[in-house]
Amino acid sequence: MNTQTPQGEVRQILEMNAFKPGDTKAEAVERRLANLGAASVLFYRQPIEMVAAQGAWMIARDGTRYLDFYNNVPSVGHSHPRVVEAVATQIGKLNTNTRYIVAIVDEYLEALKSHLPAALSNVVMTCSGSEANDLAIRVARAATGGTGIIVTETAYHGNTALVTETSPSALKRGSLPDHVIAVPPPSAGHFGNDIAGGFRASIEAAIAEFGRRGIRPAALLADSIFSSDGIFADPAGFLRPAVEAMRAAGGLFIADEVQPGFARTGEAFWGFARHGVTPDLVTMGKPMGNGFPMAGMAAKPEHLASFCTDVGYFNTFGGNPVAAAAGLAVLDVIREQGLQQNALETGRLLLDGLRDIAASEPRVAEVRGAGLFIGVDLAEEETGRPDADLTVRVIDAMRDQGVLIGAAGRYGATLKVRPPLCLNQAEAEQFLSAFRAAIRS
Amino acid sequence: MNTQTPQGEVRQILEMNAFKPGDTKAEAVERRLANLGAASVLFYRQPIEMVAAQGAWMIARDGTRYLDFYNNVPSVGHSHPRVVEAVATQIGKLNTNTRYIVAIVDEYLEALKSHLPAALSNVVMTCSGSEANDLAIRVARAATGGTGIIVTETAYHGNTALVTETSPSALKRGSLPDHVIAVPPPSAGHFGNDIAGGFRASIEAAIAEFGRRGIRPAALLADSIFSSDGIFADPAGFLRPAVEAMRAAGGLFIADEVQPGFARTGEAFWGFARHGVTPDLVTMGKPMGNGFPMAGMAAKPEHLASFCTDVGYFNTFGGNPVAAAAGLAVLDVIREQGLQQNALETGRLLLDGLRDIAASEPRVAEVRGAGLFIGVDLAEEETGRPDADLTVRVIDAMRDQGVLIGAAGRYGATLKVRPPLCLNQAEAEQFLSAFRAAIRS
Repeated sequence: MNTQTPQGEVRQILEMNAFKPGDTKAEAVERRLANLGAASVLFYRQPIEMVAAQGAWMIARDGTRYLDFYNNVPSVGHSHPRVVEAVATQIGKLNTNTRYIVAIVDEYLEALKSHLPAALSNVVMTCSGSEANDLAIRVARAATGGTGIIVTETAYHGNTALVTETSPSALKRGSLPDHVIAVPPPSAGHFGNDIAGGFRASIEAAIAEFGRRGIRPAALLADSIFSSDGIFADPAGFLRPAVEAMRAAGGLFIADEVQPGFARTGEAFWGFARHGVTPDLVTMGKPMGNGFPMAGMAAKPEHLASFCTDVGYFNTFGGNPVAAAAGLAVLDVIREQGLQQNALETGRLLLDGLRDIAASEPRVAEVRGAGLFIGVDLAEEETGRPDADLTVRVIDAMRDQGVLIGAAGRYGATLKVRPPLCLNQAEAEQFLSAFRAAIRS
Repeated sequence: MNTQTPQGEVRQILEMNAFKPGDTKAEAVERRLANLGAASVLFYRQPIEMVAAQGAWMIARDGTRYLDFYNNVPSVGHSHPRVVEAVATQIGKLNTNTRYIVAIVDEYLEALKSHLPAALSNVVMTCSGSEANDLAIRVARAATGGTGIIVTETAYHGNTALVTETSPSALKRGSLPDHVIAVPPPSAGHFGNDIAGGFRASIEAAIAEFGRRGIRPAALLADSIFSSDGIFADPAGFLRPAVEAMRAAGGLFIADEVQPGFARTGEAFWGFARHGVTPDLVTMGKPMGNGFPMAGMAAKPEHLASFCTDVGYFNTFGGNPVAAAAGLAVLDVIREQGLQQNALETGRLLLDGLRDIAASEPRVAEVRGAGLFIGVDLAEEETGRPDADLTVRVIDAMRDQGVLIGAAGRYGATLKVRPPLCLNQAEAEQFLSAFRAAIRS
């Protein structure tokens, strides 16, 4: 049972693929550091100043156009005109809270619910995925009477006090509290050919460990694409036995869809749906408003009610009509422009292209993913060991070729391939060329 | 030492001045309840459906125009054209995160910092006041090595797990954890003529109680207008001895400016400034973007750095360029339209008018406040006891006369007079007439 603090996405971003004191400081960087201080998380040793963005592209002050394979918030495309128009129109008309009835809010909630399992008929709107996960953990605790939470070892679920406790990748020192146990992610590296069975066994071991600690389990909290663990998607279905094990012990399954949700994985609208499971709680965020700050948690009415007997919950900005307008536009664009299908097809093109490269490049150790969420493991040629230094060099070389990309995984040696859902074939091929050149250079 | 769970703002809103099962249900209300479930917090027994809002006014579906004396988010006025234009322009150009440099973000941070004490030179942008307070508590703990938090007995600081622990008014049952102690608010009701001395003594008693519990204090966390406690503003300066007592015990002072900040109290831009204290941490939210979801925490660089050695902190939506544009527009409008001065002058007009009414209406027990944040205690005529039932009847009668208003305070018997900062004299007089009629009816 791994309860240590592992290396993780945030750690890598903060400490590896990032600006560090001592790097060349342009005036704009000095200014930023003076404003944000130690909480500054600028990317790249020479950070980029951005001035505009459209579709899959971001434009820097020096005129460089970057193909965005990193940012998963502007999921239907940067500055999408439908979202822009929806926000501009609604914010000029009415922006208030859920203490009043506003038709567009319920229109949005119903549109969103049409994508969700019918049992999860209550949606609490929040501002961030962190708030959604913070709430979901408390709902799970109120509903089960337990407190124990199982997460994966490099998980990231957000930035509140409670959610940071369940985010091993956010810890720089110290260890997880007793009521949080981190298990290995569902990878072939850990479980060989029986990922589903191995993952279930590690959940059962964590439950047994909770038993020894005198703690009742409350929930398995998992990002169903295991983004910061390094992206683990296959075989579809591997989540089901783990969820069954958790339920057998009286706990719930919280699907953190902040990363895989909203059509990114191509085969389904949600990451959990690929695995044939119905979560007890679903949290969502990032791409939900294509950049308008909004997030939410879907729950069964009885679970939400059991939480609400203990405390009142109100979220001032959550469920405001402007967020509803942005969210509706996002759902409309995904449907009308067939972005789920595009994620599937363009994702397959990327997967095939990356596997072609892997076939001739021994340092590309493995390529895996679903839809437009792909992980590429980079390794030392001789030993096959994860190679974080190579990953940093590739990220920098990609930037020099006009492609934005980041890393994930316990060793920071997995490239996170995560373009907007509107990516076209030419852009996918441009990425593949840039990656081929970067890995060879 | 009061460590019980008192009645509070949220409790009142949820259980008193709100839609309840069994009330007449229109179709729109049924729809909302089906969507939000137990987390629904609709106002009024017959909730209002809103369709538009402008300046100090909200417009319902049936055409009724309501003068908004409740909502403190659209502080420079509902649908303010400057904010609308700023958001519409920036969201069409670039909406990204703080991993890149974007000039407008630093422009905003510098404009905001020009209003803050110079020592608090780092600002972490978040999505909500809850996230800001959640972070501030952790920063205070990291900086002091303590864990104890002192709050007032009907305080509300937000909705995350950690912040709910410090919000006695959000608890429906159960009690505060050992590391949170609630003290009486700085009111004449508790401390007679020596509010400053009495409040300091209760902070010292809480510190002593922490000592008996073996807990080191981390912070006094206070909304400097004591909004949900019932609005306590005078005498200006009463916070200083309490803050000194906390600092003498090694703790910090977190000024929660989510309610009083951004010029509302008239005499100063922040509530704490009226009291002549410089906080160690300042949190802000609600009116910051006039409804665009944004919030933040200002800290001394060394305090933020001590927190960031333990965990990484990144907020996906926090500090996005659209929030910066909205925030800049808010600061511009406050300055250009002289809204702080207007809060002072129109606030005085309201205070005088309400005191006139109080002079002839024994059920109006006390009127107090600063700028456009005024509390009006309603009481039984014979006994002088706080009268929550009367307060509900007045709130309903005001609604019938086209004025939105809410309640606060331990007994839910304090009207919370909190109009937008752009309120003009005619609107103030309209409110006074409506209140006079409501209290007499």
